[in-house]
Amino acid sequence: MKKIINQPKDVVEEMVAGLVSAYPDYVKQIPETLVVSRTDDFDQVALVSGGGSGHEPSHAGFVGDGMLSAAVCGQVFTSPTPDQVFEAIKASDKGKGTLMIVKNYSGDVMNFDMAKDLAEIEDIEVASVLVDDDIAVEDSTYTQGRRGVAGTVLVHKILGALAREGKNLNELTEYGKELVSDIKTIGIALSGATVPEVGKPGFTLAEDEMEYGVGIHGEPGYRREKIKTSREMAEEIVSKLKAEFDWQSGESYGLFVNGMGATPLMELFIYFNDVKNLLEADGITVDFSKVGNYMTSLDMAGASVTMIKLTDDRLRCLNEPVHTIAW
Amino acid sequence: MKKIINQPKDVVEEMVAGLVSAYPDYVKQIPETLVVSRTDDFDQVALVSGGGSGHEPSHAGFVGDGMLSAAVCGQVFTSPTPDQVFEAIKASDKGKGTLMIVKNYSGDVMNFDMAKDLAEIEDIEVASVLVDDDIAVEDSTYTQGRRGVAGTVLVHKILGALAREGKNLNELTEYGKELVSDIKTIGIALSGATVPEVGKPGFTLAEDEMEYGVGIHGEPGYRREKIKTSREMAEEIVSKLKAEFDWQSGESYGLFVNGMGATPLMELFIYFNDVKNLLEADGITVDFSKVGNYMTSLDMAGASVTMIKLTDDRLRCLNEPVHTIAW
Repeated sequence: MKKIINQPKDVVEEMVAGLVSAYPDYVKQIPETLVVSRTDDFDQVALVSGGGSGHEPSHAGFVGDGMLSAAVCGQVFTSPTPDQVFEAIKASDKGKGTLMIVKNYSGDVMNFDMAKDLAEIEDIEVASVLVDDDIAVEDSTYTQGRRGVAGTVLVHKILGALAREGKNLNELTEYGKELVSDIKTIGIALSGATVPEVGKPGFTLAEDEMEYGVGIHGEPGYRREKIKTSREMAEEIVSKLKAEFDWQSGESYGLFVNGMGATPLMELFIYFNDVKNLLEADGITVDFSKVGNYMTSLDMAGASVTMIKLTDDRLRCLNEPVHTIAW
Repeated sequence: MKKIINQPKDVVEEMVAGLVSAYPDYVKQIPETLVVSRTDDFDQVALVSGGGSGHEPSHAGFVGDGMLSAAVCGQVFTSPTPDQVFEAIKASDKGKGTLMIVKNYSGDVMNFDMAKDLAEIEDIEVASVLVDDDIAVEDSTYTQGRRGVAGTVLVHKILGALAREGKNLNELTEYGKELVSDIKTIGIALSGATVPEVGKPGFTLAEDEMEYGVGIHGEPGYRREKIKTSREMAEEIVSKLKAEFDWQSGESYGLFVNGMGATPLMELFIYFNDVKNLLEADGITVDFSKVGNYMTSLDMAGASVTMIKLTDDRLRCLNEPVHTIAW
């Protein structure tokens, strides 16, 4: 394992220290926690997200005006504990309730739910939106149902815009549930990720091999095969997305190509180009685009494609300005 | 070689196509060129930069209001030709002259200089600022003198702010020359980069080995050794920077930790934390910070540290808002 780290057990603490030290105008750390919160005053429903670390800039990079109120950083690929999530809720709640945006992993679901119970004891109203956008497989290593992956960032963005506008907790929860059903993601991996405390990759692929549908913790995908061209990978992925959305020519979508951590931006732009060309050839209009490393998996090489069915309101929310480190 | 690409010879064309297709509100491609330019109207000295591709988001990601007017994308790790640079100048010049920001590589210096000659034939006034911020080695594989690396992004930012404010060509050139002398960078590499048309890494390091001072095209650094902790790497790098700046306790600097393409953000934040702690222990105040992948080297693992000696004016320019894809 070659990484720029000190002791493997300290990576999350030191990462959070570096993050808040680099961007004090954006975020602060709640003392004696791994919770990163907004530095500015706000008066709205609080939005809290988080999960295991290793997906940077998710989620702390999306804390700020117009997106999240706070993010909880668990240990690497490990759900944050309920008390840490509760700290994030306490730090963010302004008396209007807290909406938790949770990726669908069993540990996260359980721990965020327990945090909700802790908050309700202190009369803080809490609701949650569960993101399960990964269409690659049903049920997975750490999941009942579908995994929550890069589409979560779009949920942060859209609900963040609406929360800032003054929507109440119930409205945001209902909006979020419908929104999640219109966001689908599917990934490809060219290499596995190495968790620092493990010291070797979670899975390995041969020098000429790739895998479709791998999860953001290296959970198995649905097929391994010889490496293909970007265009061929795009054809496979677009066919899966089309089967899910069952789109009609003329519909409007957002397209988000996300790198897994070790894939250069050059490759992401090439892949985006191939995916978008296929969509346009199928009559789809792409009215929102995003390309970069937003929901990573440590040093995994690969990329995911997220599509979101757009409405005027969703598009407006995606384009609203925000004050975050990473959007 | 495992990459998300089609034919190696097409990577730059397809990357540029993807970039402008993803971000049409920010950039457009000058037809039949690999020049990316602003989409909006402006009336100021034009700022043009560029160089070989493979350093994304440099430089096209920094085109937009408050930074570059246009960027020229050469083939991978290959200087753009004079006619391409000339196209960028023609597309950007508003009758107030063009300032070229050039990284110090022999090919770039020669080709940007020839473009200047072409422009002057058409009565376009052109000046240039040469960036040679890499303190790792004197003279290198493609360089007389020091190499130009990540510090170039800070030059784009500061001169971009001043150009927008209406500084003239001569003022910008003079300001830029003094600015460059106060920006220093030094890198570390954990792995080599693979140029698509070559198909294998430009250099290889053993599984437990790293190299100090590697350039952004994989040019040799100054020492290879067994991998160290982030803190030890930071000590080595800070000692080199201190020897260059000869700083005094109480001075104010900006600190920019840049990933080489395959290094996750988690590691960059840990490394930033270690570097900043050492600087503060030495009495330095860090008043500007930036952490991320900005001047990459394809899929190289590693990071560079850039420091800039701050003045009130430089800090103000670094903090001015911009409209770009990647700043």
